[in-house]
Amino acid sequence: MSKERLIYLPLGGAGEIGMNAYVYGVGAPGRERLILVDLGVTFPDMDSTPGVDLIFPDISWLIERRERLEAVFITHAHEDHVGAVAHFYHRLGVPVFARSFTANIARAKMAERGQPEEAVRTADAWPETVSAGPFTVGFVPISHSIPESSGLVIDTPLGRVVHSGDFKMDTGPVVGEAFDEGLWASLAAPGVVALVCDSTNVFSPHAGRSESGLAAPIEALIAGAEGMFVATTFASNIARVKTLAEAAVRSGRSVCLIGRAMRRMIEAGLETGVLSDFPRTISPEEARDVPRNRLMLIVTGSQGERRAASAQLAQGKYQGIALKAGDTFLFSSKTIPGNERGVIRIMNQFSEIGVDVVDDTDGLYHVSGHANRPDLERLHHLVAPRAVVAMHGEHRHLREHVKLAQAGGREGVLAPNGTMVDLSASPARVVDEVETGRVYLDGTVQVGARDGVVRDRIRMALNGHVAVNVILDEADTPFGDPWCETTGLPEAGRSGVPLVEVMEEVIGEFLARFGSKVLADDDKLDEGVRRVVRQSAKKELGKRPEVTVIISRLTA
Amino acid sequence: MSKERLIYLPLGGAGEIGMNAYVYGVGAPGRERLILVDLGVTFPDMDSTPGVDLIFPDISWLIERRERLEAVFITHAHEDHVGAVAHFYHRLGVPVFARSFTANIARAKMAERGQPEEAVRTADAWPETVSAGPFTVGFVPISHSIPESSGLVIDTPLGRVVHSGDFKMDTGPVVGEAFDEGLWASLAAPGVVALVCDSTNVFSPHAGRSESGLAAPIEALIAGAEGMFVATTFASNIARVKTLAEAAVRSGRSVCLIGRAMRRMIEAGLETGVLSDFPRTISPEEARDVPRNRLMLIVTGSQGERRAASAQLAQGKYQGIALKAGDTFLFSSKTIPGNERGVIRIMNQFSEIGVDVVDDTDGLYHVSGHANRPDLERLHHLVAPRAVVAMHGEHRHLREHVKLAQAGGREGVLAPNGTMVDLSASPARVVDEVETGRVYLDGTVQVGARDGVVRDRIRMALNGHVAVNVILDEADTPFGDPWCETTGLPEAGRSGVPLVEVMEEVIGEFLARFGSKVLADDDKLDEGVRRVVRQSAKKELGKRPEVTVIISRLTA
Repeated sequence: MSKERLIYLPLGGAGEIGMNAYVYGVGAPGRERLILVDLGVTFPDMDSTPGVDLIFPDISWLIERRERLEAVFITHAHEDHVGAVAHFYHRLGVPVFARSFTANIARAKMAERGQPEEAVRTADAWPETVSAGPFTVGFVPISHSIPESSGLVIDTPLGRVVHSGDFKMDTGPVVGEAFDEGLWASLAAPGVVALVCDSTNVFSPHAGRSESGLAAPIEALIAGAEGMFVATTFASNIARVKTLAEAAVRSGRSVCLIGRAMRRMIEAGLETGVLSDFPRTISPEEARDVPRNRLMLIVTGSQGERRAASAQLAQGKYQGIALKAGDTFLFSSKTIPGNERGVIRIMNQFSEIGVDVVDDTDGLYHVSGHANRPDLERLHHLVAPRAVVAMHGEHRHLREHVKLAQAGGREGVLAPNGTMVDLSASPARVVDEVETGRVYLDGTVQVGARDGVVRDRIRMALNGHVAVNVILDEADTPFGDPWCETTGLPEAGRSGVPLVEVMEEVIGEFLARFGSKVLADDDKLDEGVRRVVRQSAKKELGKRPEVTVIISRLTA
Repeated sequence: MSKERLIYLPLGGAGEIGMNAYVYGVGAPGRERLILVDLGVTFPDMDSTPGVDLIFPDISWLIERRERLEAVFITHAHEDHVGAVAHFYHRLGVPVFARSFTANIARAKMAERGQPEEAVRTADAWPETVSAGPFTVGFVPISHSIPESSGLVIDTPLGRVVHSGDFKMDTGPVVGEAFDEGLWASLAAPGVVALVCDSTNVFSPHAGRSESGLAAPIEALIAGAEGMFVATTFASNIARVKTLAEAAVRSGRSVCLIGRAMRRMIEAGLETGVLSDFPRTISPEEARDVPRNRLMLIVTGSQGERRAASAQLAQGKYQGIALKAGDTFLFSSKTIPGNERGVIRIMNQFSEIGVDVVDDTDGLYHVSGHANRPDLERLHHLVAPRAVVAMHGEHRHLREHVKLAQAGGREGVLAPNGTMVDLSASPARVVDEVETGRVYLDGTVQVGARDGVVRDRIRMALNGHVAVNVILDEADTPFGDPWCETTGLPEAGRSGVPLVEVMEEVIGEFLARFGSKVLADDDKLDEGVRRVVRQSAKKELGKRPEVTVIISRLTA
């Protein structure tokens, strides 16, 4: 029998920021018992995934080995960590463990998709632990931008792994547990094989700032505002929502929360007790009767999402409330790379109304939820692992984090998605490369990223589409004239003649030119028609459209 | 006869950064003689303009009044100022004036599109002037990120307007003319009605830095690199290309330029004499034989453009050259908002190869070509206009710039695209609102932004497409079965039955259910088929595709 080993295999989250899914295994090679840490989503964009609703990691590898899977552990309730749980639960069929707040969010997701809520089990914080096969897993509180974030202590017969989860070192997080240096240092006692560690902010050179430092500048900003004050932040950043709300109250303003996601998060915070003293809020209906300079809205949509409250307010009235000149809008957030256009669109719409927009350019109104470089070094030092495995980052973040670990005299492990690492080897060793990828939720259907569905949509977006109908009689002779319908193409090009007429003519010529041998063969006919349509479009428009040829044969 | 007036009308560039087009007019209302300053493009993106090649301002207003147009003046050779000239020349038919370097670039564009190069006339710098109807226009050298940028002195019988063009205040611009404070102050002498002024960097609070300050840090970076060194910047930033090349030579490296646009710009610089002492370069073929640590590539693609040299190098070999671990890649540029994804993609691809990527995070390797806030204030002060008109910026930039002017005790004019302002009134007065918009170059065809062509492509990208063929006989009875072809849709949805089969069945049922009255009416039939197809897709997939219905009637 082969020697047992302790493996780490990221299926998502290592090579991108999003759709986290980390597998750990312990046992004989190929027979390891497995756990999964986090199962999140990433969000689509028009560039590469138009029309897609959500993006999941491709966890086929794990699904094929589900009989070896013991449990799923969720570190915190951000979508990129919990968002896919309810979509894959029925294919994994193992219990899902999370702390109270995270479990509350996860259960709501399960219920929404008709999955059993009781599959989500509430775990207590470390030193309590959960046993799952050969694993003993403890949820260690750590500060982040959502309540009850946890790192995991993963104890196995082959040693201890510490999985940081997403974290920052904040001793004044406003809501939730402060970073507890002593607690984290205590994890090192039995020796730690590997620290699997958040890499997001490895390029940020300065020590992180505390959430608690935001109250004063935000209050000063609100106090100086003359009209209505509106602030947006990430819905799940309950601490920030609280900071904003309390600053409003201290400035003598009533607080109104707008946006379903934000109200849901506050509700979960209250239900689970992580949030106990949130200021009283008023409804949008009540808000309409409050003088502008006595009102503060806290709204969703910090990333410029088209349907969120901030975008709606930028375009006019939303829930009976309209902004006007003299009002102030605060982005208490950072713009995630790729979302700049949407955020800037909103800023300009507010500018057109005469609303003053304030963002975090000066670093006064937002702090990151992730540990910066010096704080990463500090965690390495506290946990004192034999190896640091970089996770939760794009490739450039992982690579830099590995360099950072090495500069500190530790082993650094670069393991992008699909890289199976034997952590029990010293030094840790890559033992397999597993195929990974993405699965799209497209409407209600899961499609593989390589199925060509989205590729075809992108092609239509770039090139337009022509539908062609050709009818042939029983003798394979064209019956009537070919017919073209275009979508997303100019009506006419170079010649000035309507494009469909030009194309119908060349198809007619093509059909007349070829004998029944070509015309009798659907594939050849399809290929030929497609070719002449694309050629004539290229000549007329300078672009080659996508073409669908429907061949009808009158053989009934 | 009405009193004469001096008007300003931005048709593009005021409310966006891109596609600049500013009209000035002088004369009786409705009979003003006109000039156009700049005629540029903006670049498409997948979000809003998939498949589009270039975006032009809609200058219909001007084309309809071309008999009143005297001339076009181009301030500098950036695409957002000169890029549309050759596309609209045949519809304007007036001479185009520019200084030597800009004219060189403009003529090449004219030649490429089969337009007369001689329409572009070379103007000398101020105090030389060009007469155009009632206008006397002088090109006043000003520093920017491309050689021979100019502000314009526009003298009219109703007073002087100073149009800043794009500018920064750089007394060491490396290539081209330094900012000359005395020259700009001298423009104020006869009194200035309005300063129409670049707003791009109005939110940047610190004084601008000089191009000449980059040489030392760049040289230090190159000197410390062990492998090949590759740098990218904007192709038109000849000063930067020179700074990079000279630093390479001082570090004992041979320089190879890769990318057509960059070589073209250097060529134009040499042809027009603005660049006289550029280091000797080697070809990509020669570069292959140079040891890595003796080679420096300067390449196009600082914005992550998929076809540019940097993206190609990130994906593997380009022109026989491949990067490898230990090489260094420098973005000597800023990422224009909206281009983040493309740039980050390249950074991660380089990370995967093991190439060290350096960008301008620390502010050492790039300076902006636009004046920051204190420099804008200084120009206001030097030119001492009665009014400051904010141009070249998104709405938020224009609005902030107006506030800045007002804070300095001057009249500030907020005039987004389409706002006709009478500058001869005091205070300046909005006298008309003109319809403006965008025109797309789609392949080789110009289409209006509101024509629906691109909207339909976006819909197909989001929703997929179904082509349906229905054949009816002479009695309006369905002949054979309906046929569906899908593009960009999953093969099957909820039921597991192939989607086309589900749709064909519901169409068949629909046809069977309705009498010849519906079936005889193409519009009703089309609408009905479309509806049932979309309904069944919604049920199966959770999304409603775009549908093309082709109805064939066997009446031949």
